[in-house]
Amino acid sequence: MSNDTIVAVATAPGTGGIAVVRISGNSALNIALKHLSTKSLKPRTATWCRFGELDDVVAIWYPRGYSGEPTVEISCHGSVYIQQTILQSLVDSGARMAEPGEFTMRAFLNGRMNLSQAEAVADLIEAVTPAQHRLAVSQLRGGYAEQLKALRQELLDLTSLMELELDFSQEDVEFADRTHLNQLIAELDSHLTSLISSFAMGNAVKRGIPVAIVGRPNAGKSSLLNALLHDDRAIVSSVPGTTRDTVEETLNIDGLTFRFIDTAGLRHSNDPVEVLGIERSRRAIDEALIILHVIDSTAADNAEEPLKEGKDTILVYNKCDLLSSGETIRRPANAVEVSAKTGYGIDELKVLMLSKMSATVTSDVMLTNVRHRDALRLVAQALANVKAGLEAGTPTDLVAVDLRDAIYHLGTITGEITSNDLLSSIFGRFCIGK
Amino acid sequence: MSNDTIVAVATAPGTGGIAVVRISGNSALNIALKHLSTKSLKPRTATWCRFGELDDVVAIWYPRGYSGEPTVEISCHGSVYIQQTILQSLVDSGARMAEPGEFTMRAFLNGRMNLSQAEAVADLIEAVTPAQHRLAVSQLRGGYAEQLKALRQELLDLTSLMELELDFSQEDVEFADRTHLNQLIAELDSHLTSLISSFAMGNAVKRGIPVAIVGRPNAGKSSLLNALLHDDRAIVSSVPGTTRDTVEETLNIDGLTFRFIDTAGLRHSNDPVEVLGIERSRRAIDEALIILHVIDSTAADNAEEPLKEGKDTILVYNKCDLLSSGETIRRPANAVEVSAKTGYGIDELKVLMLSKMSATVTSDVMLTNVRHRDALRLVAQALANVKAGLEAGTPTDLVAVDLRDAIYHLGTITGEITSNDLLSSIFGRFCIGK
Repeated sequence: MSNDTIVAVATAPGTGGIAVVRISGNSALNIALKHLSTKSLKPRTATWCRFGELDDVVAIWYPRGYSGEPTVEISCHGSVYIQQTILQSLVDSGARMAEPGEFTMRAFLNGRMNLSQAEAVADLIEAVTPAQHRLAVSQLRGGYAEQLKALRQELLDLTSLMELELDFSQEDVEFADRTHLNQLIAELDSHLTSLISSFAMGNAVKRGIPVAIVGRPNAGKSSLLNALLHDDRAIVSSVPGTTRDTVEETLNIDGLTFRFIDTAGLRHSNDPVEVLGIERSRRAIDEALIILHVIDSTAADNAEEPLKEGKDTILVYNKCDLLSSGETIRRPANAVEVSAKTGYGIDELKVLMLSKMSATVTSDVMLTNVRHRDALRLVAQALANVKAGLEAGTPTDLVAVDLRDAIYHLGTITGEITSNDLLSSIFGRFCIGK
Repeated sequence: MSNDTIVAVATAPGTGGIAVVRISGNSALNIALKHLSTKSLKPRTATWCRFGELDDVVAIWYPRGYSGEPTVEISCHGSVYIQQTILQSLVDSGARMAEPGEFTMRAFLNGRMNLSQAEAVADLIEAVTPAQHRLAVSQLRGGYAEQLKALRQELLDLTSLMELELDFSQEDVEFADRTHLNQLIAELDSHLTSLISSFAMGNAVKRGIPVAIVGRPNAGKSSLLNALLHDDRAIVSSVPGTTRDTVEETLNIDGLTFRFIDTAGLRHSNDPVEVLGIERSRRAIDEALIILHVIDSTAADNAEEPLKEGKDTILVYNKCDLLSSGETIRRPANAVEVSAKTGYGIDELKVLMLSKMSATVTSDVMLTNVRHRDALRLVAQALANVKAGLEAGTPTDLVAVDLRDAIYHLGTITGEITSNDLLSSIFGRFCIGK
């Protein structure tokens, strides 16, 4: 394979004890040896030597490195000056500076990993919480590759069946019994739907589980957020309707990131600004995976109903510190009593939130990548066209076009089908040196 | 040797493509193997394996690594989460977090380098300009080790001579001819003085060459500084005496750092604040290695004399843009004509400044370390005591105490003589992981 040789610092930018410069390409070894005080490097063996007069380094040659190409890694002292000078020297000797993600892109192009795995490398490097890390590792080690393979097989089975029909179409025969065909389509559809819907959860783990805090004005929603976050980010006042804008904060509970959306109080209003805030609340509830419905324990009508069925709603009875001793309120068994002011019940609330999510997020098969979800949606759309076509009696060879579309879009996920534009957009979000 | 096993991330802090975790100590290999998916590691051979379920890593075992001890280096993906989790896992298995500079301190304690070389490692990592880098490398590769060795030999020769005298002192004999003794002392003194005085230059390269900009009020000193720096850091006005405080700015010219000290105008004043500023100017001139003496070309008495003999003074005739066409001014041949306003002559001035310094800074033997200079000063002081003692006829055995002092202080530079306090203070300024 003929290509150019690329270089970059692979370690974090800035000054460190050591830094690692990575050289990848067919000339990697030749270019490196021009500067090293050793005549040769043994494969995968750490060799102590000098890089010109610049520094004492350790060099390792991988005949087939991370990128799937000949690679030399040079560990040098970690001053910015040394890093820059080594890069410049290598560029002067015929290498070129690597683009972001170019080592990983080459790993993909050289068959070291599929496109979905290559994308997982960026997720892995960016992961901050254990859950994010686990998802990235799962994707790196294959992830839903099995699911994608099964989907592909089902699509190919469908194609075979349709081509069979096509072979006979010359003789003007149409299959009377399409039961098997329809059954296959139904199965495919169900698999696609379940995979696509796992995105909400996968994305929640990756970006933070969206939690909406809702409730009547002055129920203490902002105070509850502050109590959860232990700081004074949101403006709290006792004038109803203070929080007109949404505030986003994140909190890590036991390795899971929760993304709180503090919303304007839900009530009828004629103030146009407030109406906008209420509209935002409604949208937040739609996006949220958990709803904290805050209720003022001291208010007369404290037996509110959950705002939205089918969501993980937690009823939070706030201001319990203001209740008279012995005073009881009528509340559902699954509600939690807190005082945002004193901190009472806040830990219990956190445990409850965690328990709502942890069962779900340990699932192995979770779509985390927007690009993959969009591709699967295109597959589902193409499949819907196939189904509609068959129902409408469209000629089979035209329906086959939609089926090929479905296979095409599925192929873009693992990179069996790629374009330069797609690769640029994927690897452009990587850091330099990876 | 029995010691504990230490771990740290050796690469720059933060997120990168890869990061390197370093484990050093007798149990390094055992502790690492508890987590790696391989049963063993071959010396100096890169082995691809897994670190628990966490990450795919490359591990290398050095039977005698950088620290002079068994060392394992683990290259992992560079997320902060992975770095932290690997550190935590290794600590859980019996390693402990390394102190700043502890790997290098062990390299010193295990005889891999002397103390002066160990100190150079920190300088090397912090070096930003080629000149700083060159100095650190020179010190790392021995530096003035030859000079120190020679000094030590001279001190030992002196001791032998004095002990010879001591042996005979029982018999109440005193050497009539002390010519050789005095000659040795004079040579030692001269070597010490030249090494100590190289510190000014060595330190200048390390911290920046101090340049004082002086001249009469309104000669355009601040404007000149701005023109040199190409920005508007200093406040410039046409009211004489505007610059009451000193402003420090640095500029890299061709790899050398110049540290400009903009000073209050030098003139007689009764304003106490201004008097303070003038005092500061005088001190800046004392410390400076280069003086830019700014002269207003349009002023009548433009033939000023250099302010201080023996300094590298450059006469800068400013405001040459305000001279009428054809107008000439009486100025020394070595002066430079500039216009801070138009930028005319500024590049010529930079070249001139560089030429004043570059000959000197390429010298190999330069003291850059305050600790070393202080130790050498103590050696010189002890030697002065020896000399004074001999001249005053102090008994030779008392003089010998001062001589031993001199040898002691010399030994602290390369670490033949050390204390825990000294080591803590030296290695405490290192980064973690080195």
